Amino acid sequence: MSYLDNILKSRRDTRHFTADNVPDEVIEKALQAGHWAPSVGLTDATRYYLIKSAEVKKAVKELFLDYNKKAEELTDNPEQKEHYKSLKLEAIEEAPIGLIIGYDRSVLNQFTIGTVGSNEAVKFSSVCAAQNIWLSLTEQGYGMGWVSILNYYQFKKILDLPENIEPLGYFCIGKPATNYDNQPMLQQLNWKQKPEAPDCTEIKHITQNQVAHLVVKHQPEPDDKAVFCRLLQEKIDAKTKPVGALGTLETLAFQIGTVFETLNPKIKNPNIVVFAADHGIANHGVSAYPQDVTRQMVTNFLEGGAAINVFCKQHAIKLSIVDSGVNYDFPTNARLINAKIAKGTQSFLHAPAMSDTELHLCFEKGKSIVETIAKTGSNCIGFGEMGIGNTSTASVLMSILTGFTIEECVGKGTGVADEKLLQKQNLLKNAIKNYSGSAELMTQLSYFGGFEIVQIASGMLTAFENNMIILVDGFICSVAFLIASRIHPEIHKNAVFCHCSAEKAHQKLLDYLQVKPILNLDLRLGEGTGCAIAFPLLKSAEAFLNEMASFESAGVSRK
Amino acid sequence: MSYLDNILKSRRDTRHFTADNVPDEVIEKALQAGHWAPSVGLTDATRYYLIKSAEVKKAVKELFLDYNKKAEELTDNPEQKEHYKSLKLEAIEEAPIGLIIGYDRSVLNQFTIGTVGSNEAVKFSSVCAAQNIWLSLTEQGYGMGWVSILNYYQFKKILDLPENIEPLGYFCIGKPATNYDNQPMLQQLNWKQKPEAPDCTEIKHITQNQVAHLVVKHQPEPDDKAVFCRLLQEKIDAKTKPVGALGTLETLAFQIGTVFETLNPKIKNPNIVVFAADHGIANHGVSAYPQDVTRQMVTNFLEGGAAINVFCKQHAIKLSIVDSGVNYDFPTNARLINAKIAKGTQSFLHAPAMSDTELHLCFEKGKSIVETIAKTGSNCIGFGEMGIGNTSTASVLMSILTGFTIEECVGKGTGVADEKLLQKQNLLKNAIKNYSGSAELMTQLSYFGGFEIVQIASGMLTAFENNMIILVDGFICSVAFLIASRIHPEIHKNAVFCHCSAEKAHQKLLDYLQVKPILNLDLRLGEGTGCAIAFPLLKSAEAFLNEMASFESAGVSRK
Repeated sequence: MSYLDNILKSRRDTRHFTADNVPDEVIEKALQAGHWAPSVGLTDATRYYLIKSAEVKKAVKELFLDYNKKAEELTDNPEQKEHYKSLKLEAIEEAPIGLIIGYDRSVLNQFTIGTVGSNEAVKFSSVCAAQNIWLSLTEQGYGMGWVSILNYYQFKKILDLPENIEPLGYFCIGKPATNYDNQPMLQQLNWKQKPEAPDCTEIKHITQNQVAHLVVKHQPEPDDKAVFCRLLQEKIDAKTKPVGALGTLETLAFQIGTVFETLNPKIKNPNIVVFAADHGIANHGVSAYPQDVTRQMVTNFLEGGAAINVFCKQHAIKLSIVDSGVNYDFPTNARLINAKIAKGTQSFLHAPAMSDTELHLCFEKGKSIVETIAKTGSNCIGFGEMGIGNTSTASVLMSILTGFTIEECVGKGTGVADEKLLQKQNLLKNAIKNYSGSAELMTQLSYFGGFEIVQIASGMLTAFENNMIILVDGFICSVAFLIASRIHPEIHKNAVFCHCSAEKAHQKLLDYLQVKPILNLDLRLGEGTGCAIAFPLLKSAEAFLNEMASFESAGVSRK
Repeated sequence: MSYLDNILKSRRDTRHFTADNVPDEVIEKALQAGHWAPSVGLTDATRYYLIKSAEVKKAVKELFLDYNKKAEELTDNPEQKEHYKSLKLEAIEEAPIGLIIGYDRSVLNQFTIGTVGSNEAVKFSSVCAAQNIWLSLTEQGYGMGWVSILNYYQFKKILDLPENIEPLGYFCIGKPATNYDNQPMLQQLNWKQKPEAPDCTEIKHITQNQVAHLVVKHQPEPDDKAVFCRLLQEKIDAKTKPVGALGTLETLAFQIGTVFETLNPKIKNPNIVVFAADHGIANHGVSAYPQDVTRQMVTNFLEGGAAINVFCKQHAIKLSIVDSGVNYDFPTNARLINAKIAKGTQSFLHAPAMSDTELHLCFEKGKSIVETIAKTGSNCIGFGEMGIGNTSTASVLMSILTGFTIEECVGKGTGVADEKLLQKQNLLKNAIKNYSGSAELMTQLSYFGGFEIVQIASGMLTAFENNMIILVDGFICSVAFLIASRIHPEIHKNAVFCHCSAEKAHQKLLDYLQVKPILNLDLRLGEGTGCAIAFPLLKSAEAFLNEMASFESAGVSRK
């Protein structure tokens, strides 16, 4: 056994000391030994604090006692607890010298060599210093005991250690009163036996490293759609979050990616278009508001005072207002898209709401409005509506297109009172009863349609053709979507249903369309307000897909 | 200079080796030296792995190269980067012997002496062994180099090391080709100079530890509260929309107005605070992720790569990250609020998670963090959390505070598989069965609490005192709210429940609290993400109340 081996082997974690003093030279020599320890990247972060004061020792001892009680509670059984309580685990007050070995973690504030894999290397350097000190004290005939049963937060506080200093523990230093029969104290006391030999295994082969690297450089060809979808899903799943943990936002991100056919989708120039028109059926008192409110509200839109103005401004969404057929002559210089078919439809109680030509014009106007918007570079369009009486129109259309009864399709609109509801239902039932036309979609639309509703349906189809995300607002816009989806069922993949209206028929229609709305906030205003307030959630979906770190890039462990 | 001093002083972190072979006896003698190192509580957790295979060395070298590139990127300036690139920091392929020194963290599964203050004592024992090996090799005329620039996750994977083995690094062993002029290599190459002497200070006095006691100030009710509420409701109803048509947005507008006590409320300096901490219960395998993910995610937060970063950036919400008790030392210059109580709680399976003092500290820290934020002029604060294992902590707290069974309170967390769910439930049931403390809230909290959860509860109470809107995120934050509402039930009036989590216990808890969440998007991420994405809806409420026209101002007819 070499000279060094003798020191290494006789070094003890000492808890029993004599009253002998420890000369300053002994400590100096020991700290010099610590100073020769390795220091990662020469960070030189190890710091020493000496304690000789009885007052300080007493305070540290109290901290130990507090935490040792906690340790007792952690024992696995009552017998072990008794054994544990009998152990002497420190000599804080008896040992002539107390030493704190710590490290200054502020060295990590600058670039340091060797800490990129783990910054623990800094503290490991200090532990090596502790071991050197231990060995030096042993060679000099002294002993040391490492006390770590302390709440370091309080420890730092009572000793007024700087925030950036992290202690490894409190070390008791003195002349050893025993050598524990040349073995660890815990072995002497039969707490545990130390194994004879170190545990060593040779590693002869490597396991192939299979960290998948997601390369998102080239855009896949449209014909390998399945491959693209898999890559997109992989990109979503590689983000630093449990798979699926962003719920609907993940569904939205996947949808936006597939509609735009890119792994890095960007919503550009979002635009909400409010189509306004009047309805002949309103003359029968189906709404709580006079028809004139349609044009008053269009003026309110143009002046920026309506809810949709406030929400579009909030989210930097462009707002366009369309006169699809309001019963009013607006000044020609109004910032209004003129798509007026007539000054309101006819009442469909006894006759068609519009002619075949008017229906045709509605499709043409709706298409041209959205084409113009698509040409501005917009790839995301929301549809809203305004029109006193248009919940009645929408209810009838829903009923004849889905087969649901009028009772299932009629709500209170913007707020008719209970006694009026029955009257409204009877009126609409009569209108349907009076209908003698065919079950062909276009015939039904010209008979029961509204100018804004048909223009919206046409606009949605145009948005689909242009690979745009289609934001669907409440009940009336969902009926427009129902019409569009009858013409082109694939339009579903572009549609985001923004909210479920307080209008009870809306939930029924959403279920019928087998779609799930994003928001459920009891809105029943229309104007596209649901699209506007749901919009930031689409942006959140886009943002997490494009901006969040992946497990690989952030160095976060997967399961 | 003693014989030992000579060895200590001439030990070098060696990166240059001759081709000479290393006899087995040299390694055996060195590992025996390591075996004589201290082992906390005789845990004997140190494990050694030898590498002689060129194939294995090559694979490790590749890992080094990969991470060293990352290290280069971290340098502080271009000059330093060049200097860094010129340094030889390893000899993985040249050194005849590779050694991995690691520790088996599964020893912590049983009661161990000396690990209550910090379980790091186990790894420190292994570092002492590393230093002993270094010294023994030096005495025998050999050298060692410690390589820590490795991604340990991949390192363990390619070497097929068991999950419970944590390597300190990769050690290159051989005959040194140089002694670097008897100084550290980095000093010889002028990277840095090692100071002449150790840094030692004597501590002569203690600082008194003062833990403040929790006092929540009562809000004085304004005398004319009823009048104010009527005026506020009138303002909402006068907007150009049917009464109630903005649904939840109207409720929110009313709430914001009453909390801020003004008809023109403005949300100012919104702030989301994510509290992160580790949980002893995580050692029992209740989470799908390793505990290390807590600190990895904190780093991700600091680097801006997590979901909450993306969403806060999107909505211009200030984000603050708090270390409430992560089992890791962060650099002091990290943009991290230090409120560390300890490096994780203890497992509450058999013993209290924290001491009474720690509980008080949590209240103190949570209070002080929110007070600081309130002083910045913020009147709207969101609370988020991160902590592997914290759904278990939250479930147990919910169960004991509400009386619901564990089955009703436990979900799959961030995604444990079905078979594990039963195991998790049983574990938590046992923990509750083992509890013999009182039914008093503070006793329950110190026994079952998590540092971040209690800090959040305290923070919410402080936000309430400061008339702030409190954004409550998902399941865990709702449990924190449950705690806060037990202390001060009136806090309800300030709270906005941002979303209903996919964690099924959350709906149960929301029902219990008789509150309705704004969003229902199947989120289950935590981090305060629900607060961030719900935030624009609060802004919409504020905006319509302040910016929309009234019927009178827009000249729109009321009914």
